[in-house]
Amino acid sequence: MSGSNKKYVYSFGGGKADGNEGMKNLLGGKGANLAEMAGHSRLRLPVPPGFTITTEVCAYYYANKKKYPAALKAQVDKAIANIEKLMDKKFGDPNNPLLVSVRSGARRSMPGMMETVLNIGLSERTIPGLVKLTGNERFVYDAYRRLIMMYADVVMEKAAGIEPADDGSGIRKQLDRMMDELKKEKGYKADTDLKAADLKELCALFKERVRAVLKKPFPDDPQEQLWGGIGAVFASWNGRRAKSYRKIEGIPDEWGTAVTVQTMVFGNMGGSSATGVAFTRDPGNGENKFYGEYLIDAQGEDVVAGIRTPAPINKYSKSEHNKDLKTLEEVMPKIYKELYGIQRRLEGHYRDMLDIEFTIEKNRLFMLQCRVGKRNGPAAVRMAVDMTKEGLIKTQEAVLRVTPSQLDELLHPMLDAKAEKELKPIAKGLPAGPGGASGMVVFTADDAQNWAKEGKRVILVREETSPEDVHGMHSAQAVLTGKGGMTSHAALVARGWGKCCIVGCGAIHIDAKNKRFTVDGRTVKEGDWITLNGTKGNVYSGEIPLVEPDIEKDVTFRTFMKICDGARRLKIRTNADRPEDAVVARKFGAEGIGLCRTEHMFFGPDRIKSMRKMILAEDLPARRAALAELLPYQRDDFKGLLKAMEGLPVIIRLLDPPLHEFLPQEDDKKEELAKELGISMERLNVRIQKLHELNPMLGHRGCRLGITYPEITEMQVEAIFEAAARLTKEKVKVLPEVMVPVVGTKAEIKNQYDVIKAKADEVQKRYGVKLNFMIGTMIEIPRAAITADRIAEVAEFFSFGTNDLTQMTFGFSRDDIGGFLPDYLEKKILPKDPFQTIDRDGVGTLMAMAIERGRRTRPGIEVGICGEHGGDPDSIKLCHELGMDYVSCSPYRVPIARLAAAQANAGRQRGHGRN
Amino acid sequence: MSGSNKKYVYSFGGGKADGNEGMKNLLGGKGANLAEMAGHSRLRLPVPPGFTITTEVCAYYYANKKKYPAALKAQVDKAIANIEKLMDKKFGDPNNPLLVSVRSGARRSMPGMMETVLNIGLSERTIPGLVKLTGNERFVYDAYRRLIMMYADVVMEKAAGIEPADDGSGIRKQLDRMMDELKKEKGYKADTDLKAADLKELCALFKERVRAVLKKPFPDDPQEQLWGGIGAVFASWNGRRAKSYRKIEGIPDEWGTAVTVQTMVFGNMGGSSATGVAFTRDPGNGENKFYGEYLIDAQGEDVVAGIRTPAPINKYSKSEHNKDLKTLEEVMPKIYKELYGIQRRLEGHYRDMLDIEFTIEKNRLFMLQCRVGKRNGPAAVRMAVDMTKEGLIKTQEAVLRVTPSQLDELLHPMLDAKAEKELKPIAKGLPAGPGGASGMVVFTADDAQNWAKEGKRVILVREETSPEDVHGMHSAQAVLTGKGGMTSHAALVARGWGKCCIVGCGAIHIDAKNKRFTVDGRTVKEGDWITLNGTKGNVYSGEIPLVEPDIEKDVTFRTFMKICDGARRLKIRTNADRPEDAVVARKFGAEGIGLCRTEHMFFGPDRIKSMRKMILAEDLPARRAALAELLPYQRDDFKGLLKAMEGLPVIIRLLDPPLHEFLPQEDDKKEELAKELGISMERLNVRIQKLHELNPMLGHRGCRLGITYPEITEMQVEAIFEAAARLTKEKVKVLPEVMVPVVGTKAEIKNQYDVIKAKADEVQKRYGVKLNFMIGTMIEIPRAAITADRIAEVAEFFSFGTNDLTQMTFGFSRDDIGGFLPDYLEKKILPKDPFQTIDRDGVGTLMAMAIERGRRTRPGIEVGICGEHGGDPDSIKLCHELGMDYVSCSPYRVPIARLAAAQANAGRQRGHGRN
Repeated sequence: MSGSNKKYVYSFGGGKADGNEGMKNLLGGKGANLAEMAGHSRLRLPVPPGFTITTEVCAYYYANKKKYPAALKAQVDKAIANIEKLMDKKFGDPNNPLLVSVRSGARRSMPGMMETVLNIGLSERTIPGLVKLTGNERFVYDAYRRLIMMYADVVMEKAAGIEPADDGSGIRKQLDRMMDELKKEKGYKADTDLKAADLKELCALFKERVRAVLKKPFPDDPQEQLWGGIGAVFASWNGRRAKSYRKIEGIPDEWGTAVTVQTMVFGNMGGSSATGVAFTRDPGNGENKFYGEYLIDAQGEDVVAGIRTPAPINKYSKSEHNKDLKTLEEVMPKIYKELYGIQRRLEGHYRDMLDIEFTIEKNRLFMLQCRVGKRNGPAAVRMAVDMTKEGLIKTQEAVLRVTPSQLDELLHPMLDAKAEKELKPIAKGLPAGPGGASGMVVFTADDAQNWAKEGKRVILVREETSPEDVHGMHSAQAVLTGKGGMTSHAALVARGWGKCCIVGCGAIHIDAKNKRFTVDGRTVKEGDWITLNGTKGNVYSGEIPLVEPDIEKDVTFRTFMKICDGARRLKIRTNADRPEDAVVARKFGAEGIGLCRTEHMFFGPDRIKSMRKMILAEDLPARRAALAELLPYQRDDFKGLLKAMEGLPVIIRLLDPPLHEFLPQEDDKKEELAKELGISMERLNVRIQKLHELNPMLGHRGCRLGITYPEITEMQVEAIFEAAARLTKEKVKVLPEVMVPVVGTKAEIKNQYDVIKAKADEVQKRYGVKLNFMIGTMIEIPRAAITADRIAEVAEFFSFGTNDLTQMTFGFSRDDIGGFLPDYLEKKILPKDPFQTIDRDGVGTLMAMAIERGRRTRPGIEVGICGEHGGDPDSIKLCHELGMDYVSCSPYRVPIARLAAAQANAGRQRGHGRN
Repeated sequence: MSGSNKKYVYSFGGGKADGNEGMKNLLGGKGANLAEMAGHSRLRLPVPPGFTITTEVCAYYYANKKKYPAALKAQVDKAIANIEKLMDKKFGDPNNPLLVSVRSGARRSMPGMMETVLNIGLSERTIPGLVKLTGNERFVYDAYRRLIMMYADVVMEKAAGIEPADDGSGIRKQLDRMMDELKKEKGYKADTDLKAADLKELCALFKERVRAVLKKPFPDDPQEQLWGGIGAVFASWNGRRAKSYRKIEGIPDEWGTAVTVQTMVFGNMGGSSATGVAFTRDPGNGENKFYGEYLIDAQGEDVVAGIRTPAPINKYSKSEHNKDLKTLEEVMPKIYKELYGIQRRLEGHYRDMLDIEFTIEKNRLFMLQCRVGKRNGPAAVRMAVDMTKEGLIKTQEAVLRVTPSQLDELLHPMLDAKAEKELKPIAKGLPAGPGGASGMVVFTADDAQNWAKEGKRVILVREETSPEDVHGMHSAQAVLTGKGGMTSHAALVARGWGKCCIVGCGAIHIDAKNKRFTVDGRTVKEGDWITLNGTKGNVYSGEIPLVEPDIEKDVTFRTFMKICDGARRLKIRTNADRPEDAVVARKFGAEGIGLCRTEHMFFGPDRIKSMRKMILAEDLPARRAALAELLPYQRDDFKGLLKAMEGLPVIIRLLDPPLHEFLPQEDDKKEELAKELGISMERLNVRIQKLHELNPMLGHRGCRLGITYPEITEMQVEAIFEAAARLTKEKVKVLPEVMVPVVGTKAEIKNQYDVIKAKADEVQKRYGVKLNFMIGTMIEIPRAAITADRIAEVAEFFSFGTNDLTQMTFGFSRDDIGGFLPDYLEKKILPKDPFQTIDRDGVGTLMAMAIERGRRTRPGIEVGICGEHGGDPDSIKLCHELGMDYVSCSPYRVPIARLAAAQANAGRQRGHGRN
């Protein structure tokens, strides 16, 4: 790999480039896009010349004790010479010095997570030449003090192995304070008030301090600066921030970063210079308008740092903050026109909304960077729809332009975008649960519950949450925690409920005892209002108005969903137990019910008694009598559900949980029950004890119940078929599918099939109707997947119960996994929580086996998935690849599933590792 | 199938036969052997001519509402005509009538489980002719009364749908009583005292009673008798006795029975006639001596019925009972010589010990039946060894001649065979646990425990047992239950312990309240001695001496084991946690340890405290301190075990169960612990509660513990490697294999591998030795089997934990399966308890997958099985077929495993269905 003929360095500039946009894996996103902008025949944009050191060098660097390939030095030297030729300057030349920046660039953008050093090449030797050349001493020393500050922080302090604490003892903070002191001393307000002489003095003081603190002089050799900068960028790939960002975003460690070295151009060379950031469309709402900000006489970092308020580039970009500032269009109309033209060409070239950085150096426009721009959910949907209409993209591509979580934003209450824009977050955390929420701060779960009972809207703030907090989390509008990551308890619970949640918000210091938290010196007390944007992770003080989604009126949303529907193969069903849920799901586009859990129906206060009588019956007649009491309820349940889903298939699962789940735990309830059954408490307790199981997950449940008590199955299917028969007589078209759970052997499904079929025949005869129905099974026991060929001899459809299948394939109990799952994710034993996203290699292999074997026996057997994975995009992709017929998810996830199904069909490639 | 050209009837006799021995599936064992004896060119024995109706007719009969194929009648008529020709008699001819018997015969012998009717063809019309022909009126009426008794019972009562109770109300018992009354009236003692006139009168009375009770006359038409008999045999295939026998023996219902119709020959035609049963070798000890009994002037049923004491056929066959009776050799020397010659030819032909039935009619010898003879364990082993030596069979066949349960007889205390022979059982039950035991009867588990503490030997007698009885079962010499089958609680527990046990002994009526049971009118009280033969299911009154096995001195046993060892490919290891167990297992032939469970080592009173301190430690230093206390214990444990297994591999499994299993349940123990840890009871309870899991089987255990607490793994492997290093220094050759349990992903085993390897390196360096060891994993999680290719990238060996693999593949909890397993076996949802015998289709498929994938990555990877299936012959066969390297079982099962492994290699075909 270190052969001297291997290419490690890719140059760009002067209308040419060694690389192109397709080489992101090698050059990083930034390097590839610079090469594209500089070198593509349709673009050839004014990009400052430079070169990119490949990600392979990064891999080499980590594999070889932070050494470089032998051939690298010569290739860098050659690339520098190329820049020198194009710019007619020389790196380190006292008379005509070339300055460069050194930046990181990974395959995927990791904004702010790695290091950058600007102005490399400035030194005692080159400063005089540059002053002469620019005629601007102040500019030169300002650049020099920036170089010292960055370099001391990013290169020298890191190289010394110092990890500065947050207490301001780091070199960067020290230098910042020195500059503030000088400004104070001189009575200046802004950095721009500093004169050349001030800056010159400051640079001298900086260098003294650097040598004193870091025990090394600031390097005066441009070559040393360059290689120091390159090393710092590679080292920052494994910096603490970058590593934790990668973990959250699922970016593999082995990708590595590229390093781009580029000619410095200066937006801070006076009134004819400027720097800016712009988007080819509005990233906040998706409108097809050029949108951006700029600063006269500034470097790029000033725009980001927020010290000066940037001005709008055009009228469209005006806001409350900047409406009085002059636009670029007004100040530099010619350059604005050039920039406008470039951004149109770029968007046409990339066929996507771009985020571009530009600098104007003495009335000359340079393009520094371009990349696909980040956008919020509504904007993403709008752009996808608009670009499709404009003919810029095809529908296949349109569905890939919106991520499932962006679509999710449209389904939750969101902060009013305009209002949010005017505010600065008081803290940022990890976006663990989508949507927005406002409420009064409370610090305990009990308070949350009590306040909520009084009709107050509250936000529960905890250092971290535990299962004991669940009642409070449920009562709260949102949850905010100081600790924990995307898989912490709070995050898992909130996502399950679709509740707004921010976790790991380290900036807030919670004093639960005194019921308050502090953040950046500000104190927020119990009862104070705060607002969370759970989609972004932003915490705001006060109450911000929320916008409720109205997807029925949202034409753009509906158009986008239609595009998705046209692009997918998978059908989308919903999990619904009640007619109300079914109605909601139909509105969201559900094409049937994939799972109706009948056990929920037994918990009504009027029904649970009969259920308990049935469970505790001493003999068959007593059990039948209790079942007969339940029959009318069940029939009404099914009638409502089948009617709500008229014309669509409805899968009804027979009784699943072990019977002890229906028995009372509390003594008063038990006494009541004993009285009703006419037995002593002692005897009741004995019988309850008898039903107790050590591992109820693996116990007497599902079809095991139906086999030992066929009368239970008979009652349930009698209710189903009677409901279907009555509706059929009312001319309602019904398509019930009876599903037998927990099947592991052909003999089990055969036993239940016979019971069900006999009852179906009996009911059809009794009502004189012919019903259109199927009898099938869950595939949730590993053995069912393995013997699916045999099971399909009986079962007329399969539905994967991936929750239980995951439990048994891994030997994990979902209820108990909390004991080690965080540790497993932390130590990368598991890449993801397998109850969130289907484990491809284990569970997925079993599923593939089941489908292949099932279809071998019964070609075209209907196959779907119920269970919570049915709403997870990665899992939906797997289901698509496995050739399933449908996925089924909760009503509110149906649009997400429609999108994910379309994306799966459009061939989105998502990385996934085996473990 | 009812095509008229299909052959349903196979004739034999006159030196010819349509069938042969190879046609057992079609003709049943009896029919096939009769054909062989009658027709094979090397035999052509004097077999009374007859014919066999095939098992296909039985299948047809059950599939077609008890109708026969249309072609059957004509084929039977033709076969009868063939007999008539050979015998020169005519069926139903008044002058020269042919009499026939009708007998059952399934593919495998089901002795006494189906019906037989003799003397068919006798009627008012044919009696006078036969009397004239034989000149023996008494004989003819004796035959007639037998026919009426049998026919009324077997054909007519059954056809009337009457299932007689055990109270003597059945027709057979009524007729028996009538005969007894007549004998009493006349002052006769034996049946043979009855004169012709008495019998004639009795026949008339019998027919009256039959008509009165069964509302139908006894049929006088020989054809009606014949078809009645055939129908009764087919019907008896689904009789209660036959069905329950099949269930126990695992004989499929669909096999069906054949029916053999054969010329009657009479051993009861006076002093020149006789009937007998003999074995070509002694079935009691295996000696190569002709052994048998006979009765002069009797029919076969008289020998079996035990009314008269049969005489020995020769000197060798003499016993206490019959030593004064004359032998056949003495009484009929010529015929004895003929018989002796025939049995030698038969044994040479069949190359196995045969059970033969013969009849001598007026000095003429007829062979009625021959089949492979049943034998006890010691006899089976001796015959296998002897026949190999004699060159009669090859070693491959020798190993198939002893069933695992026969071999098991040699490993348990057995009743003294001679003593047992002299006694009649007072009751019979199902043989649930092998061996013999004597003891005083007790009726509660507590009594069993208390009496045993006083040094008394007791047998626990219960209607059925439950987990609450386990302490009493453990204290008792044996267990006897009135209810329950081979998979009842008592049976499962007893087999697990290798304890003598009889279950389902319905004849005993237990009155636990008054501490006594009655059987057949006899009362057995608490403290009375009884003796059980758990291998046969016999209960005896009183104490019978036991013979303790001494396998080290038993040369025949050792020779047989050597034959097995030469014939097997699988290695046999043992599961042993203590050096004592290892020593026993080596004696039994173990070739290594397949499973040492380290958790058992933590329960010693001196260790459990440190273990609990470790579990409840608040932080790492506290946990490390507690672990340091455990280290020396563990090291000594491993040193002992490795030394006992010098030169052989020893697999040591790291900590497996969830930690809460080590915590105390009782309040006093908890208080002690709280004191020791210096924390409050409240706090202790909170922490114990925190460790509680809803499904501990799927909880935080195995490598999941080692991953969250690497220090536990470190302590255990430090102990293992230090023990190995010290022994190595002592010149003891040790081969430790460290096994990581509950692995489901490659990342898990990799994590633990690294911890183990680092510790191994450290210890080897510290001791300056090089250790020969491996690091591998259990395959007990379905996902591990599925991803075995990846896991084998790290694991150096696989050991199947089929208990857990079965639990998770089926989704069964072994602790809870009692709730539905009996029902599942009863309803044939499962063919067998999958925790007894590995489920081929599900678990077996996963195992095959794991081995194939594991070897793809790491060719030659060592693969074995620990877990209790390792001692089950059917499971061992599967392991052999899957190409494993070894099985591991409990020390006392090692010889069984050696045999089973040899049988698997010898290609024994056992039926198994998919389900």
